[in-house]
Amino acid sequence: MIRFVVIGHRAHTTADFKLDDIAGGAGRLDVLVRCVNSAFFLSHDIRKDAEIHLVLTGGEDAPKTVRFSGREVRYLNPDERSTASLIRNALLKKVGDTEIRASPGVYVSRTSFADLMKELSETSNFVYLREDGGDVRGFEFPENPCFILGDDRDLTEEEEEIMSSYDYDLIKLGPLSLHADHCMIVVLNEMDRRT
Amino acid sequence: MIRFVVIGHRAHTTADFKLDDIAGGAGRLDVLVRCVNSAFFLSHDIRKDAEIHLVLTGGEDAPKTVRFSGREVRYLNPDERSTASLIRNALLKKVGDTEIRASPGVYVSRTSFADLMKELSETSNFVYLREDGGDVRGFEFPENPCFILGDDRDLTEEEEEIMSSYDYDLIKLGPLSLHADHCMIVVLNEMDRRT
Repeated sequence: MIRFVVIGHRAHTTADFKLDDIAGGAGRLDVLVRCVNSAFFLSHDIRKDAEIHLVLTGGEDAPKTVRFSGREVRYLNPDERSTASLIRNALLKKVGDTEIRASPGVYVSRTSFADLMKELSETSNFVYLREDGGDVRGFEFPENPCFILGDDRDLTEEEEEIMSSYDYDLIKLGPLSLHADHCMIVVLNEMDRRT
Repeated sequence: MIRFVVIGHRAHTTADFKLDDIAGGAGRLDVLVRCVNSAFFLSHDIRKDAEIHLVLTGGEDAPKTVRFSGREVRYLNPDERSTASLIRNALLKKVGDTEIRASPGVYVSRTSFADLMKELSETSNFVYLREDGGDVRGFEFPENPCFILGDDRDLTEEEEEIMSSYDYDLIKLGPLSLHADHCMIVVLNEMDRRT
């Protein structure tokens, strides 16, 4: 299983935005939906061994985490608007203490970044994508890697503090700093080459 | 200069589509706008040495080519909708025999794929991204490469026939077949590592 955790630092946790304005009105949700595209889409297939957790920390009802499972997901298309619609649909659900299913392969919960890290630490090995890391090309991927990324902003000091409670590897993707969704493409291409 | 040519096999050449429906109503224009994103966006910068030509071959007024110049472009944002809006704006312009500027760094013309190849052959070296090519990692990039890609469909026989009039290199990006915009990310990462 290949996991991605992307933190949406302003991404809305309520469905109070228009699908016409996911960059502005939804707190840069456009960044997160592009990450969903990167996690799953192959030319004629879906990466079934991939899973992505979008940690939404903006808006009135934060935090929430929306999880997409490649093995189960349906109605997923590569364009931004339709993926944003799946997320908005998830945010419309009443969520209590446990994760609930919003649509096939799309889940929503009140999980915070700290909770998520704790939960994933039991099954995954963390890999943090940051510009001061080692080159991905020399990197020995662990079993069940879980890649941690910020959206268009780096992790906050508080999030870095949470990270520091766990072991993780630190990698970079190349000489230039890339958007989160582009980083994911480079990582996945490298992993594809190892198998 | 790094150039990309992406052929939109059904992409509309008239502005008769809604920005809410660029995947369906505009003939998979969503694929092309994601390619524009891949061509230009770095974390905190635009690739000024990049240029992309979108060859639109669908709809009532085909063919048209919309060109984005990284050196000149303004008002470009990473989300699909705003880029689609720049393209629709270009398609609203009356185009005669010569290329015209629709907005800063965005140009539109009646150039066909055949015309474009002829024009670019004078300044660029063609590199065709296809699954039976050599691995990009062992590839010696030519000066002024121009990468040729299909949208969600491969080049047609007719387009392959046009290609065959020119010298070109054939490369692939890895063991799996990827979306066009993802291919561009892998190519650019490889080029970034060479400079």
